[in-house]
Amino acid sequence: MRLAILGAGAVGTSVAELAADYGHTVTALADSSSAAVDAGGIDVAGALESKRTDGVVGSASPGDALDGEYDVLVEATPTTLGDAQPGFGHVRTALERDRHVVLANKGPVAERYGDVRELERESDGRVLFEATVGGAIPVLSTIADFDASHITTVRGVLNGTANFILTRMAAEGLDYEHVLAEAQDLGVAEADPTFDVDGTDAALKFVILANVLHGNGREYTLDDADVEGIEDIPGSALDLATEDGRTVRLIGEVTATGEVRVGPRLVPANGTLAVTGTNNIVQFETEHAGRLNVSGRGAGGPETASAVLADVGRLDGD
Amino acid sequence: MRLAILGAGAVGTSVAELAADYGHTVTALADSSSAAVDAGGIDVAGALESKRTDGVVGSASPGDALDGEYDVLVEATPTTLGDAQPGFGHVRTALERDRHVVLANKGPVAERYGDVRELERESDGRVLFEATVGGAIPVLSTIADFDASHITTVRGVLNGTANFILTRMAAEGLDYEHVLAEAQDLGVAEADPTFDVDGTDAALKFVILANVLHGNGREYTLDDADVEGIEDIPGSALDLATEDGRTVRLIGEVTATGEVRVGPRLVPANGTLAVTGTNNIVQFETEHAGRLNVSGRGAGGPETASAVLADVGRLDGD
Repeated sequence: MRLAILGAGAVGTSVAELAADYGHTVTALADSSSAAVDAGGIDVAGALESKRTDGVVGSASPGDALDGEYDVLVEATPTTLGDAQPGFGHVRTALERDRHVVLANKGPVAERYGDVRELERESDGRVLFEATVGGAIPVLSTIADFDASHITTVRGVLNGTANFILTRMAAEGLDYEHVLAEAQDLGVAEADPTFDVDGTDAALKFVILANVLHGNGREYTLDDADVEGIEDIPGSALDLATEDGRTVRLIGEVTATGEVRVGPRLVPANGTLAVTGTNNIVQFETEHAGRLNVSGRGAGGPETASAVLADVGRLDGD
Repeated sequence: MRLAILGAGAVGTSVAELAADYGHTVTALADSSSAAVDAGGIDVAGALESKRTDGVVGSASPGDALDGEYDVLVEATPTTLGDAQPGFGHVRTALERDRHVVLANKGPVAERYGDVRELERESDGRVLFEATVGGAIPVLSTIADFDASHITTVRGVLNGTANFILTRMAAEGLDYEHVLAEAQDLGVAEADPTFDVDGTDAALKFVILANVLHGNGREYTLDDADVEGIEDIPGSALDLATEDGRTVRLIGEVTATGEVRVGPRLVPANGTLAVTGTNNIVQFETEHAGRLNVSGRGAGGPETASAVLADVGRLDGD
């Protein structure tokens, strides 16, 4: 497949670097101000080197990438809330051109799911977004396999930064502020970690899951989620939990009645939900097959790119 | 899709019972000596009631089911070793008629993978077999998503009976013979538990995984697996492991170099591989996405039927 990749951060860069290995051609790579575009396939290494040394991916504009030759638009620009722009506009343009879209950007399917699905219905292109929930962990594909109607509840840990902080607080008996600073030093937390620690990032993912599970009847956005973060958890609360064989995790859930909730919860310290470090886990309660767990690295450039390329492979196989 | 189901044990029965809920029609259901066949859709409840009360599924023969009208043959007869008959013959007949095959029977893909793939190449039908490995746990679909070439190692627990016995031995300090008898009382172990406790059942599943991961270059059968069971593990060995924070699990593996091994291994007592009771887990080491874990109930009628129906759904979507 010919891929136009919008966004040259960790995920977009990894998709570009791995595409050839999965049998695909990158016909465009764009960051927010420049692009490399070639219908015959761009020089990925050269474009990334140009970005490093000259600050531009290439001599074309991002608009050229969007309007160029491709079978699949890979939308890997930063997630935005509300109108989900400019990501949503990119999705619209590609679908109106009857091209497929693979999203790593959560905005369009968390904040404007109905609009995305409506555009998809009128297009020959399809929209896939496995990478938006849990990186490489097979979350949406598992829902598709079972059919959403046979899954009653989904819960789990879908923010690695918050999970790292809670893991370290419990293991070392340290306070939130101390561990956050450590996580920032390690590059696990961003300079502005707000969306990770206040629950927004996890909530967006559970909103996406709610849309997939219940989206035929109702559209969810971040406003429909009941969200609490981890900023106010004292170290002493984790110490008390530990004494009781439990620990605290930032758990999200889409309930059987379609409520979306994210907040700190006590879980058994050695239980399945208590994944450690930056790991993620999703637990499905199914109608006929009991409980299924899928876990692994929920973020990272190559990890998320693997999910993007799995979606591209699905489109290629159809 | 129209389904002909061969095998009326726990899995075949559950597929028949759930098929309508997934939008499919059962046009035949057969046990080893009788069948109900109706191109317009059989009366599933009536056929199962007839089997309970009269010992026959219907007035037709199993051969009528195989030769009748269907889009997908669901092969759920018991797994056999060596020539994998009669399951393999059923697969051949369906493929020669250009029909799809969904396997719950491990024999054809564990013992005659090359023959199955060759028949598939000459057919318009496809062969899927998610249900043969880990029941409802998404194992083969995860490999397909990542592409086998990007998965380096697969390991895990794929026999629930052996895992139940090891879990109980460690928890209660009891000996193998005692716990086996208990498992038989509970219906977790069969009257003849040989294939579960000697590692054969788990080995067949790892042989299937080896075929999927490395099958382009080499064909695996049970003879290629290095297999050790759990029958000779003394309770004292589990006590020693427990004192050291570890426990014993029957772990199977397909290594990066393509070796297939199954045997008792020491694992961390609270680690990811130490699933409890009859649960199964599969751990994938991937080239770009780190380690992924998938776990849940690896056996059972409705659980395995869910995997069969997911495969049917995949064929329906293509």
